[in-house]
Amino acid sequence: MKILKLKDTNEFTPGAMKRFFLVEDSPSFKIVNFNLDEGVTFPVHSHDLDGELSIQVLEGEGFFLGDGDTKIPAKQGDILISQIREPHGVRSKTQMRILVTIAPPI
Amino acid sequence: MKILKLKDTNEFTPGAMKRFFLVEDSPSFKIVNFNLDEGVTFPVHSHDLDGELSIQVLEGEGFFLGDGDTKIPAKQGDILISQIREPHGVRSKTQMRILVTIAPPI
Repeated sequence: MKILKLKDTNEFTPGAMKRFFLVEDSPSFKIVNFNLDEGVTFPVHSHDLDGELSIQVLEGEGFFLGDGDTKIPAKQGDILISQIREPHGVRSKTQMRILVTIAPPI
Repeated sequence: MKILKLKDTNEFTPGAMKRFFLVEDSPSFKIVNFNLDEGVTFPVHSHDLDGELSIQVLEGEGFFLGDGDTKIPAKQGDILISQIREPHGVRSKTQMRILVTIAPPI
């Protein structure tokens, strides 16, 4: 049993994305907090593996990105659920914090 | 790919706990939002199964509960990581919203 605190990773890099691996020692899932400065793109990508992921908007707003021109507004409290093998990405409008859970971990 | 909105499940039952299964059709994980009215206990429990879970405090505050008298303050942005087979529970102080991710799903 352990406690993680999202307030401990509330840091941004100007014009870029900062990444904090909160859980990466578990066979069940990986949990990562990404903090995107305003106007930053987390490029669309996918992996040819079974499994799913969630991308939860903790703070700020932007867009969930997908295949082709898919661009879905993403606000605080919105959660994208996607297969790991489906193309997925994020673009921030304001500063934006997201929490990504990947199961099984990759 | 699908989008869930936590603002759509922002409902409480006086003196009790309300439960919303956000993802329960995935072989990878289960995601559940529990909303506890103030002073409500989500009793300590465990399952004799491999896997882990996270309990993220979305809003409000209270305590993470564990084995014996374990009682850890839990505020917005705090995340408990636990084995499914470790005793775990929650007690709310204020109204409290939590997001539970279980992998693999049980």
